[in-house]
Amino acid sequence: MHDCFETARKVRSGNRRALSRAITLAESSHPAKRAQGERIIDALAQSGIRESLRIGLTGPPGVGKSSLLNRLGSELTKQGKRVAVLAIDPSSPRTGGSILGDKTRMDSLIQSDLAFIRPSPAAGALGGVAESTREVTFLCEQAGFDMIFVETTGVGQSEVEVAELTDIFVLLVSPGSGDELQAVKRGIMEIADLIAITKSDGDLRQAAERTCAAYHGALRLFGPRKIDPDGIPCAMNVSSTDVGSLMTLWQVIEDLACWRQESGNWRQMRIDQEQRWVRSLLRRQLLSNLESCSGLTGSTVQLEAVIRKTGTVFSPDARAHLRATLAKLNQITATGNND
Amino acid sequence: MHDCFETARKVRSGNRRALSRAITLAESSHPAKRAQGERIIDALAQSGIRESLRIGLTGPPGVGKSSLLNRLGSELTKQGKRVAVLAIDPSSPRTGGSILGDKTRMDSLIQSDLAFIRPSPAAGALGGVAESTREVTFLCEQAGFDMIFVETTGVGQSEVEVAELTDIFVLLVSPGSGDELQAVKRGIMEIADLIAITKSDGDLRQAAERTCAAYHGALRLFGPRKIDPDGIPCAMNVSSTDVGSLMTLWQVIEDLACWRQESGNWRQMRIDQEQRWVRSLLRRQLLSNLESCSGLTGSTVQLEAVIRKTGTVFSPDARAHLRATLAKLNQITATGNND
Repeated sequence: MHDCFETARKVRSGNRRALSRAITLAESSHPAKRAQGERIIDALAQSGIRESLRIGLTGPPGVGKSSLLNRLGSELTKQGKRVAVLAIDPSSPRTGGSILGDKTRMDSLIQSDLAFIRPSPAAGALGGVAESTREVTFLCEQAGFDMIFVETTGVGQSEVEVAELTDIFVLLVSPGSGDELQAVKRGIMEIADLIAITKSDGDLRQAAERTCAAYHGALRLFGPRKIDPDGIPCAMNVSSTDVGSLMTLWQVIEDLACWRQESGNWRQMRIDQEQRWVRSLLRRQLLSNLESCSGLTGSTVQLEAVIRKTGTVFSPDARAHLRATLAKLNQITATGNND
Repeated sequence: MHDCFETARKVRSGNRRALSRAITLAESSHPAKRAQGERIIDALAQSGIRESLRIGLTGPPGVGKSSLLNRLGSELTKQGKRVAVLAIDPSSPRTGGSILGDKTRMDSLIQSDLAFIRPSPAAGALGGVAESTREVTFLCEQAGFDMIFVETTGVGQSEVEVAELTDIFVLLVSPGSGDELQAVKRGIMEIADLIAITKSDGDLRQAAERTCAAYHGALRLFGPRKIDPDGIPCAMNVSSTDVGSLMTLWQVIEDLACWRQESGNWRQMRIDQEQRWVRSLLRRQLLSNLESCSGLTGSTVQLEAVIRKTGTVFSPDARAHLRATLAKLNQITATGNND
């Protein structure tokens, strides 16, 4: 127990090694280690909770997320800011393999004593955000970082999940013809707080400006949102080779964060996020329990055998078994209703 | 009851109006109507189950899904084939609105007496496939269609869900520079059975051929799959204005279907899909029950009030409530373990 308090104390003092250790425990699939991580979180929660600005950053591979973070992060650390980067690592559903290298691609930022870069494992079929990412964000906040960037590739649901963990959600887009506007998922456009068109320099500058204008127009289509000071999110051009453009981007992010804090949106958004997070945590726990629930498992195994035998869930026999399994499931949850 | 048998009989005889009615009942959120749909399905299941070739078709908006389906479908009906098209309608998460018009965009196919085009509502935050789509596919099969196309836009998880409902999963891609290879989600490349580069005509032909070569190369990266005769999926060029290219596409689809049927892969894949479908159905039912489970709901409501008050789920008070709620949840599922 003492060790957890000691680690918590070190995390709070900004010790990056202790923070790494705490994150590894919080992310562990080993129950005892995970419990240790929980105790560290408890210890930190008891001594007053710190909050950082959390920024989600998403965009397709090749859009320049790492370059932008590397350069912007370096500038912020030069100004004395403490910067954490959590890179969500998308896995592929069939091979389970993971693509990484974000850490090495941020070669300049990684040199700074004020920076902390951490790849986070992804979970789920199409590389969603790991269950523990919320805890990891909390740990970084307690370590006193001024801002936490949560970066993800546009894989499956991960953007939506990252938006749920952050205060400002930035979508990066490559310059392209007007047609490419369509390629952004509609759902993502609607949750973006800011769209930045990357690579706005050299030969691509003109294309980037056209793309920016197209997105600016498209963002108006979704109608006014009360979480933006002007009612619609901003679209802007940036280049990782132009520090000025990155600092303008940062100014827009900071202004938006300030406005939301003053207008009360910021706190309300965080509370809403926490509520949804808890609900999904309970849901996950329930599903995990279901898998070890012997009464139901027996019934499900029978059902699956019938499907194998008859070749379809629509065979009369399979349908009868499916109904029996559903009845069992209803019975279990009805028990929970009685107390 | 008589009415359900009568509707089932009409569906089986290929009556499209009866099929539409049965689908509307199966998709209904009204319990009594849904139960009627279930009875129609029961009636159909009892008189011998028919199977059609199910083809999933996905790709970003603007790639030309509707044009391709319109032209290919028309050609197939000219050959006397009966063609059903289920168009999954992506909804937007915030507005709940839906984008439609697929039906009107297939103006030529819709003229044929042998065709059936049906938009299906989407479900879930980012426009996933509706729960009832599996039943809708079954109903179309019993109506004797030779092939069923399930079409979806690349929104959220919908491609993966459509792949789970179909025998052959076709990914459509627009011609572009080599860079655009990166824009396809890695997870989708791995589940595609066939990649078709659209608009391979006129000015775009060369770009389309380069794109095709790039995908052909990329598909090799994933290593051999035993569900393909050559070990890797095929990449090919098509144009909706060139009927020959569409018939070549169709030949490739048919050859793959034949090979899979003869090699035993086809039956095994369907059984695996049905097993996964049943598991997700049970999971959905459980989550839906959870929401009406008073014991747990009370505890969750308290937890949410604490989060609202303390502003975070990491406050000691919120953590204590979260633990109590998890304990309650565990208790409910433990009850299910005893019988």
